[in-house]
Amino acid sequence: MRALRVGEDGVTLADVARPRADGEAIVSVRASGICNTDLEIARGYAGFRGTIGHEFVGVVEEDGGGPLPRGTRVVGEINAGCGACARCERGDPRHCTTRTVLGIVARDGAHADALRLPARNLLAVPDGVTDEQAVFVEPLAAACGVLERRPLSPGERVAVVGDGKLGLLCAMALAASGARPLLVGKHDDKLALARGIETARVEDARKRGRAFDVVVEASGAASGFDLALDLLEPQGTLVLKSTFHGATPVEAARVVVDEIRVVGSRCGRFAPALELLARGAVDVGALVSETLPLDRAVDAMKLAAKDGILKVVLRP
Amino acid sequence: MRALRVGEDGVTLADVARPRADGEAIVSVRASGICNTDLEIARGYAGFRGTIGHEFVGVVEEDGGGPLPRGTRVVGEINAGCGACARCERGDPRHCTTRTVLGIVARDGAHADALRLPARNLLAVPDGVTDEQAVFVEPLAAACGVLERRPLSPGERVAVVGDGKLGLLCAMALAASGARPLLVGKHDDKLALARGIETARVEDARKRGRAFDVVVEASGAASGFDLALDLLEPQGTLVLKSTFHGATPVEAARVVVDEIRVVGSRCGRFAPALELLARGAVDVGALVSETLPLDRAVDAMKLAAKDGILKVVLRP
Repeated sequence: MRALRVGEDGVTLADVARPRADGEAIVSVRASGICNTDLEIARGYAGFRGTIGHEFVGVVEEDGGGPLPRGTRVVGEINAGCGACARCERGDPRHCTTRTVLGIVARDGAHADALRLPARNLLAVPDGVTDEQAVFVEPLAAACGVLERRPLSPGERVAVVGDGKLGLLCAMALAASGARPLLVGKHDDKLALARGIETARVEDARKRGRAFDVVVEASGAASGFDLALDLLEPQGTLVLKSTFHGATPVEAARVVVDEIRVVGSRCGRFAPALELLARGAVDVGALVSETLPLDRAVDAMKLAAKDGILKVVLRP
Repeated sequence: MRALRVGEDGVTLADVARPRADGEAIVSVRASGICNTDLEIARGYAGFRGTIGHEFVGVVEEDGGGPLPRGTRVVGEINAGCGACARCERGDPRHCTTRTVLGIVARDGAHADALRLPARNLLAVPDGVTDEQAVFVEPLAAACGVLERRPLSPGERVAVVGDGKLGLLCAMALAASGARPLLVGKHDDKLALARGIETARVEDARKRGRAFDVVVEASGAASGFDLALDLLEPQGTLVLKSTFHGATPVEAARVVVDEIRVVGSRCGRFAPALELLARGAVDVGALVSETLPLDRAVDAMKLAAKDGILKVVLRP
């Protein structure tokens, strides 16, 4: 089968053996989404070698002993825990210390004709959710994860810094939860995709002063971190979503003097994200810049790295 | 009167006019302590110009309309709020946006014969607490502030990184609260001052792996931040006490991937610290390296900057 691999010679579309179940489920991929993390991994982040891709929708081909029969359309949680440690037993393998992660840590990923995951990681996709929408379940779950890490109280003022895919999804997830976020970015065309959400360009947001209780940093830039501190009230919370590659210079003294909380947030649970899509509470379709066949996956990676491009979807 | 000033020509002991009350209290200083922040300010941190020093014990000379009569031995909270904003009205001027701070922000400080503070900032010192101990109320309050920002639950495992004054006081404050902290440092002689507290050298602490729910960073070094991350469980809390000067390179991706909380902590309330000293729960006397007369304040600053020196106390 075909698989988009990261190896010694960079990113290539290779012909590899189809995965064997070995007690897990096999899923035929229907669509996969290219994430900035894929681009980071291709640049060497996390030292991963293998098939990349962790946003997908597919169809169960072998059920792996789970309750979802062959033919079920599914998405899948990307962290596969050991199943035995205290964290896994609490039902949260996201921080199992020996976990593998689809297309990120020691487990081949989703930019391929098929993939393998534990059956317990799979969730059925409701009929009303299209393939194109379902590809967004993983990043939308990560966006919803902000609220797992820092629940909002009524009346709290929240801003999202960054108008890329991650920032847009965070703003949409917050708005769908009943908050009224301000989305701050540098690109009018991207800000315009956040329908029904208040937006501001960076220079205008800065004029509001320290007006927010919570700021979500989703820009991926050190300047975004500084802007977030500029917008936060003393003792406010900065939710850090971007996975910066390498050391980032941070004015740590500001965190101490203003007694800021910086809360790291990575993945979220899939069920709330699927529910948002099923009830049409978020409009992710506007975030798809291009859909390309898997055969053009290498080109798709280059396209996804370009300024102004949001989600690039692959179709096997 | 004499005052240790930071100005264009560095740090000098100057002859200045005695402060005028103007509605505030005047305190004759009996002793003041040199803090690392004083050294940072002398190097340009915070852009302060004026008399430095914010750790002191003294005697009320003019009561400023407050309840403590002339002659009362006092310490004083260093943040002077506007008294009118929402934060001040909640009784917490520490984040009043127009506050002045003794010897740090727009208010002359304590390395002098006398100082001026709002009467509401003063607290009487119990007879059982010596001057030398009372000088530690401000930094001990800052150490106790860790627990204001991140209360510990029974059984939570906590480490303190840094065996300087701040780290030692944090470990002592945590131990006095009933926790059993591990103090991690590089200096056997300093670690030995933490009587009754478990200690470990950096290399030995690292061998324990990610064994802590909470780590307090009090080393003031970027390497201390990295060590704190190495010691923390996923989803653990890093309490940041050190005020790093300038931008510090931080592996921010680790904060996101492991969903760490970084909690800035600056000042604490004085009352709990005074209470700890009054009941003999912490032994701060061992932290005094030297006591020098105010006339030798410039030398004292140089001494305080030396390796191996802990608290240097000035006596007017």
